[in-house]
Order: sequence, then C-alpha cells, then structure tokens
Amino acid sequence: MSDGERSRYRIAPKFGDMDPAEFRAAAHEVADMAANYLDRLESFPVLPDITPGSIRAQLPAGPPARPEALDAILSDYSRLIEPNITHWQHPGFMAYFSSVASGPGILGEWLASVLNSNVMVWRNAPASTELEEVVVSWLRQMVGLPDVFDGMFTDTASVSSLLALVAARHAVPGLDARDEGLAGRPEIGRLRVYCSTEAHFSIHKAAVVAGIGKAGIRLIPADEQFAMRAEALADAVVQDRRDGWWPFFVTATVGTTSSTGIDPVGAIADICARERLWLHVDAAYGGAAALVSAYRPHFNGWERADSIVVNPHKWMFTPFDASLLLFRKPELFRDAFRLVPEYLRTGEAPTVHNFNEYGIQLGRRFRALKMWMLIRYFGAEGMADRIRENCRQARELAAWIDADPDWERLAPVPFGTVCLRHRSAALASSAEEPEVLARLNARNAAILERVNQSGKIFLSHTALRGRYTIRVSIGNPRTRMEHVRLCWDLLRDAASLTAA
Amino acid sequence: MSDGERSRYRIAPKFGDMDPAEFRAAAHEVADMAANYLDRLESFPVLPDITPGSIRAQLPAGPPARPEALDAILSDYSRLIEPNITHWQHPGFMAYFSSVASGPGILGEWLASVLNSNVMVWRNAPASTELEEVVVSWLRQMVGLPDVFDGMFTDTASVSSLLALVAARHAVPGLDARDEGLAGRPEIGRLRVYCSTEAHFSIHKAAVVAGIGKAGIRLIPADEQFAMRAEALADAVVQDRRDGWWPFFVTATVGTTSSTGIDPVGAIADICARERLWLHVDAAYGGAAALVSAYRPHFNGWERADSIVVNPHKWMFTPFDASLLLFRKPELFRDAFRLVPEYLRTGEAPTVHNFNEYGIQLGRRFRALKMWMLIRYFGAEGMADRIRENCRQARELAAWIDADPDWERLAPVPFGTVCLRHRSAALASSAEEPEVLARLNARNAAILERVNQSGKIFLSHTALRGRYTIRVSIGNPRTRMEHVRLCWDLLRDAASLTAA
Repeated sequence: MSDGERSRYRIAPKFGDMDPAEFRAAAHEVADMAANYLDRLESFPVLPDITPGSIRAQLPAGPPARPEALDAILSDYSRLIEPNITHWQHPGFMAYFSSVASGPGILGEWLASVLNSNVMVWRNAPASTELEEVVVSWLRQMVGLPDVFDGMFTDTASVSSLLALVAARHAVPGLDARDEGLAGRPEIGRLRVYCSTEAHFSIHKAAVVAGIGKAGIRLIPADEQFAMRAEALADAVVQDRRDGWWPFFVTATVGTTSSTGIDPVGAIADICARERLWLHVDAAYGGAAALVSAYRPHFNGWERADSIVVNPHKWMFTPFDASLLLFRKPELFRDAFRLVPEYLRTGEAPTVHNFNEYGIQLGRRFRALKMWMLIRYFGAEGMADRIRENCRQARELAAWIDADPDWERLAPVPFGTVCLRHRSAALASSAEEPEVLARLNARNAAILERVNQSGKIFLSHTALRGRYTIRVSIGNPRTRMEHVRLCWDLLRDAASLTAA
Repeated sequence: MSDGERSRYRIAPKFGDMDPAEFRAAAHEVADMAANYLDRLESFPVLPDITPGSIRAQLPAGPPARPEALDAILSDYSRLIEPNITHWQHPGFMAYFSSVASGPGILGEWLASVLNSNVMVWRNAPASTELEEVVVSWLRQMVGLPDVFDGMFTDTASVSSLLALVAARHAVPGLDARDEGLAGRPEIGRLRVYCSTEAHFSIHKAAVVAGIGKAGIRLIPADEQFAMRAEALADAVVQDRRDGWWPFFVTATVGTTSSTGIDPVGAIADICARERLWLHVDAAYGGAAALVSAYRPHFNGWERADSIVVNPHKWMFTPFDASLLLFRKPELFRDAFRLVPEYLRTGEAPTVHNFNEYGIQLGRRFRALKMWMLIRYFGAEGMADRIRENCRQARELAAWIDADPDWERLAPVPFGTVCLRHRSAALASSAEEPEVLARLNARNAAILERVNQSGKIFLSHTALRGRYTIRVSIGNPRTRMEHVRLCWDLLRDAASLTAA
C-alpha cells in the first residue's frame, strides 16, 4: 500500500475473528486475485529467476507484534510470493509429474477450508465421512476396480505406501509387530521387501520408517523397458527364504517415476499368491490413466492386489493434497492402526467409518469435497478425455523425437511422459564409450538448463542406464499441442546453442 | 437447480480447465457462500441431527459419466454437505480441542490452493520454501524458544511425533536402524519409549509404526494433577536398563489430551540429560499458550528438548492442517530420512532447505502462506490476547463449577479446557463407592448427550481415574462469555432433567 492510499481494510479488532463484512470484501478480492493469476499464468516464467535466500532476505526476521491491515499483506503476497514460486499450474510445467489444481477442485478446497471439517471420526464429521466413502467408491469404479476394495484418502503416496507396509507387516503370521515390535521375535528372521530398481524412493522411506531398514529392501532388476523382471523376483524370494529372510511385501509399480515403466502386475500377482506375499501396487502416477479404458491392459492383475495407491493430486486435476489408498482387507489396516482412547470413543453403528482408525493421522482434511466437485464438473468421461489428450500429446512428441536422427528416445511412452536425450547422429555408434557418454551427459544437462532458463517450459531429468535423461511429463489439462511444440522447438534450439 | 431455471454456468468444455470468466464468476459465488456460512454459523446446530448412512444414501452410488453444471454441484453442497457436518467453526464447539480457521487463515489457504505450490525441494517452490523458513522462525520466537531450534511444518502432530521418534531411533548409538532395521542387532536389546499414562495415543501409534511395538512403550504414572511423576520415570529407566531394554525416547506433554495436564519438563529434561535419552515435547495443544508470556513457566525446560511439536491448526486460528515440528539437530532428521534419487537432484547451495529430506512425505502443502497472513493480520500480541481470553473464559467456568456444590471439577485448568462432572452434594461422601460411581458415570454420559442434542454447544468426554468426565474446551476466538454462560446453563438444565 503506497503512502497516502487509504486502506480498504481495518486493523483486526482486539478479540474475535475478522469482521464478517470485511471477510466478505476480502474474499471477493482474493477471488479476483485467484482468477487473475489463472488468467495470467502464461505471463510468468515457469521457473522464477531468483537465487536461494533472496526471498527470505526481503522478509522481516521476526514476527510483527501489532496487527497489519490486509491490504499490506495481500500486496506483499502479490509482490513477493506469487511471482517467485515455481508455477505448477503453468501449461509449460513439464517437470517431475504434474500436479494441477483445476478450477472446480480449487473451489472445493475453498469450501473445505471454510468448513474446516476434521474427518477423524464420523461423529465430528458426518457428511464429510460419508462423502469420502462415496467418492472413494466412485474413483474405484472409475479406474475399473471391483468392489472388494475399500479405501480412504491420505495426504501423499509416501504415507499411503507406508500404511500398506505397516498393515502387511501386521499380517505376517507369528510376528506380532504391532504389540511386540520387530526386535522381539528373532526366530522369524528379518523381513524382506521387494520392489524394482525403478520403484519410487517412498517405498525405501517406508521400509526405513517401519524399522525394516534399507538392507531389508531387495531391489529386483528391471528389463530394457524398465519393468520388473518377474522371474528375478521369483528367484530372489526363494533364495532369500533359504538365507533366513522373511519375504512379505512386494511393490509393483505402474508408471515408475523415472521412465513410467510398467511392472508386469499379473505375473507378480502370481508369485505373490504362490509365495503368500502382500502385493502393493504403486500407481500413484499411472493410476489416472486407468480412467481411460484403452489403457486398462497396463494394469492387468492389479485387481489381485492387497493395496493400491493412486494420487488424484497428480493427474486428476485435484489440488494438492489427495492420495487414494485402496485395500482389500480393511480390517487388517484397522487392526494395525486402531487405538481408541476414551476421548475418541463414540457410539455410532459400525456401518460408517471412523477413518483415523485405518492410518497414522488422527486429524484428516476434508479431501473428498474437492474431488466430488471436480468429478461432477468434468464427468468421468471428461476426465478420461483429458488424460487421453495428454497421452496423445506425449506420443506426438515421441514421434518427432523418433523421426529426428539427432535425438534419442530412452524409454517407451505408455502414458504422458517422454524420456529423451540429444545424441547427434554422428555419435550413434560411439555413444556407449565412457568418454562420449560423459560428454553426452554434460551436454544434455546443459540443454535442460537452457530450456529451463527460457521461462517458457520447465523440465526435469533423471538417469536411465547411466544416461542423463531429459524428462518431458505432460499432465496438465491446460497444456495444448502448441506448448508441446514449443517444448520441442526449445529443446532443439538449446541443442544447437550448446557446445557439442 | 429447479426446472426451468437457467444455469449461470456452462457445461465443462471438452478439453482444458474451466473457462476463465466462468471461474471468476464461480469464485465470487463461493466467496459469498463462504461469507454467508461464517455469518450464519450460529444458526446451525453444532452437531447435526442425522443418523449414520443418511447422507451416503442421498448420493449416487456411481460417478456421473457426463459433466454437470456448477449450479447443481454448489446447490447440492449447500443442501447436503454444509448443514450436515459438525461445525468446528461454531463458537459453541467445545469438544475435543478446538480447530478453528480464522478469516485471514482461510484466505491464505485459498491463495495456496490456487498456486498449488508443492514444497518438496527449493527449486520447485522457492518462495514457498523460504516463507516456510521465515514463518517457522517467527513461531519459534513467538513461543519463546531460542534459535538453536530449526524446524518445518508437517500435517499433524501424529506425523511430527513419528518423525521425532524415527530421528531419535536413528541416533541410538550402535544401532543403524535406517540401514539395518531393528531386527539386525539383537545385542542392542529392545528399544524403550516413555510417556505418561496421559500421553496422546499418537505416541503409541508412532511406536507401532516404527517397529518398536506397544510392548516397547512404558507408561509412567501421573500424579493427582495428571502430570508425569518424574521420579517414576527415573526409576523405570534404571530398572529397564537392568532388564535388557534400551531406553532412548521420552515424550513430555504440555497439555495432555484428556485433562491438559502438564508434565514437569525441567525435571524430565534433567533425567534425559543424565540418561542420554531423546526428549520430545508434545505441546500440540498447549504450545499455543506459550504465546502468552504469563503462561511460559508451564513450559520451563522445553528449551532443552530435542524435538517439540506445536499445532497451529489447534489453537492458532490456522485452517487444518498445520503442525509445527521444531528440532535441535536438523542433520539427524536429514540423516534419518534423506534419500535423494536422481530425479530430485538439484544444484542449489545448501543455504536453503529441501524440506522433503527431513521427513516422510515428498509432496508438501504450502502451509506457511496462511500462517504468514494470519500472524500479520492478528499480530503476535493479538494472537496472545485471544489465547489469554479463552483461558480467562475457562477459568470463569471453573469458578462457577467450584462454587456449585452439585458439580465437581476434576482437573486443574492451566489453559482453556475444563474437566468436570455432576455429582450432587448429597453424594459427595459416597462418590467413590463402585455402585455410586457407576451411577454417576451413566448420569454424566446422559447429561453430555442432552447438552449435545441442544445443538447450541458440543462437548466431548474422557475418563479420569475411572470417572466419566465432561470436557469443555474453549479455543475459538469467536467464543464469547455468553457462549460459556450458555454452556454452563445447558449443563445445569441437563442435570436437572436427567434422572439421578
């Protein structure tokens, strides 16, 4: 607020919340700020050009003792915060996996924050609890899973997978991990968790947190498509049993983080059934593609899983956060996590969920509201159309790469993510020589950096078989073919400007 | 939307997000719905009069295939959801602990949901990361803790305490729990966690999740003020070491869930220092009171803790969720949790945080924004004034109870929560007889139910020394003395209408 300008807002009263009339005026101002932001999205560089520490340096080191009028706060927001975030909503954000908040999802989040409903037990969140039951069932149906699955929302896939691991640990016969812990039964042997070399690091974190440790994870090699080798899993389990390990948990990933590889869920499910192992399917990213019936074959076998995670906040237009955890045996989760102290005891019939009993967190946000609103706004078919369109865009980019002898595609493109690198035609035969590989890696890192500096497109990278890999991940309904074309142009321009 | 009425909104387009002009109109409509809700809060019964399953029965069992116009969605929201939640925002909500979203906090949450900034690494959330650093420091200063503490936001105290437990487990010398798990070193003995009988069940859940198990928790008895007996802790540690346990983690609670008891943090810190145990202070509820300097003596000794949890979403007017985790040795958390896969590697200087490295969750909401806005709006002194006022209200209620021979206060009232029961003067001498106690318990349960059915006030209960205890927890800046008076009137009316 400049000097002399009169504040639209008053200083906070001595007690109570904001004055109602003032809240209404401020809410309308924020509604316009929100609409303006979404209107002007493409005027921001996706990745802001700032150096670490520069925002912190502009903020007071200590809190204000006295209240400030809302004008000053909103104006600081517009000046300091809004332009200096990385713009996840921007159609040129093609890094990591997208996480996009659609209009109806945002409005659902707004209403949820006004209600501030804490979905811990039915009694203190009745409509919120029942809406969660309904929306979980809708999503299950939308991805084509049978009604043997119950489920709930958590904040993140990291937590969903941790809950699955803890429930599976609880189900290990003869080991009462909930009551006795892991050190109490040395005769059981050490627990063993399996996932492929391409699995997300949240599986590793879950094993660390659950007391299994990194050494308890056995990484199964992947094939040239970055899919777990099922026969290697089968061999590993047999060998581990012989060596005194206690195999109990397998994660199959549909859409790995680096390359969106797809583990052979059916073959893995066969092994899990034979060896009595818990099958957890991490479809945090890929799961959204199951909305499209044409992509369902990628998921074959997941209907045999014990637990499945799909993240609506990734590719289902849902504001962060919302992770869907589905499970076949809710009673196992309830047994593993349920501790009902007197202060939470209520008398409701067991026909409704007290959701806190199935996981770690007692307090739970009202996540179902935003999902209910956006599913109805877009319709299940409309959501599938948008996913299909992102996949089509990715395939077009893949076709351009395949047609250009100076570029190389480094992984299949089953969904919306393309892995590539620049490798001039002249180097095709020598690209695997260590010295050439090192040069290619450095050059592709430079290309990525140059594209990101454009501010038009933001990409991230990974490593695939030692190759520095540029990832283009398309998962925003706002992304149109013109953005994908721009991405391709920027990549080629950057390559031409980057020393070989 | 009734027949013949024309929709204000169009059906979703085939691709892309909501049309920008339509989003703007809808955002303004939602702004009015939000303001209307807060205006009309007291017209709702705090606890809605519905039966389990009744909302679910009114919702379609399957998702809509085709898009619906926003009118229908918002109208269903107003009809089905808004009136059928338990109203946490209501000034008559005095159950559990309050969790209140103030106006400026709500507006901060709205802006955060529009940005959808995912605060995992600095590079993809620069301003959000640095604002979190700043607001964490502000809160630390506001509660009077020295700058040896670093910290971050998590979603809930359940997760904050779990992170602390896992970091402490990682710090156990000779036990490499991160790499080797808990079953790898039987020579270490079994890990032992301590908290009082009054500690929150999230500490138990954390021990279960971390593989320590319920049997690894030793509950230390509390005194008649519901505070942990420090000398009993000291004895337990010595005895456990003798018996082959490995003591490593103590939770001291400032403001227990049942009765807001206060463990003697200083004496416990002495024991932890002598015995080399990790001291975790659970001030999830009580911590807000440290904003008021007069209440700081309750916290004496917490400056010696290894980790501290304070929940802004409880009593700091912050929309759910936001839990503040402070720690003395950030490098221990980073060591315990940091796993940096190639796809998250960035080149930033280590002068900024990549917050995901300190905890379980990779994806993290932009929680600092709402807190920054509300701290500035109320000012640190204004926040303290509101806490002080809630405590004053609770003390007044306590004085009325103490002055009435037919009522009994069952715990001290250091903060904003009062524990009480009806016990007519005639029963004062026989109240401990089993048959009388059973009658008193049933009667107080009936009184609670009757108060809750009024729709004006919502209370919850606990058990203290076998006594059914009515809890009145005051922690809403919207709660005025007239609401507390109403609560007291309703309690007395209910008692007079309830068979003895």
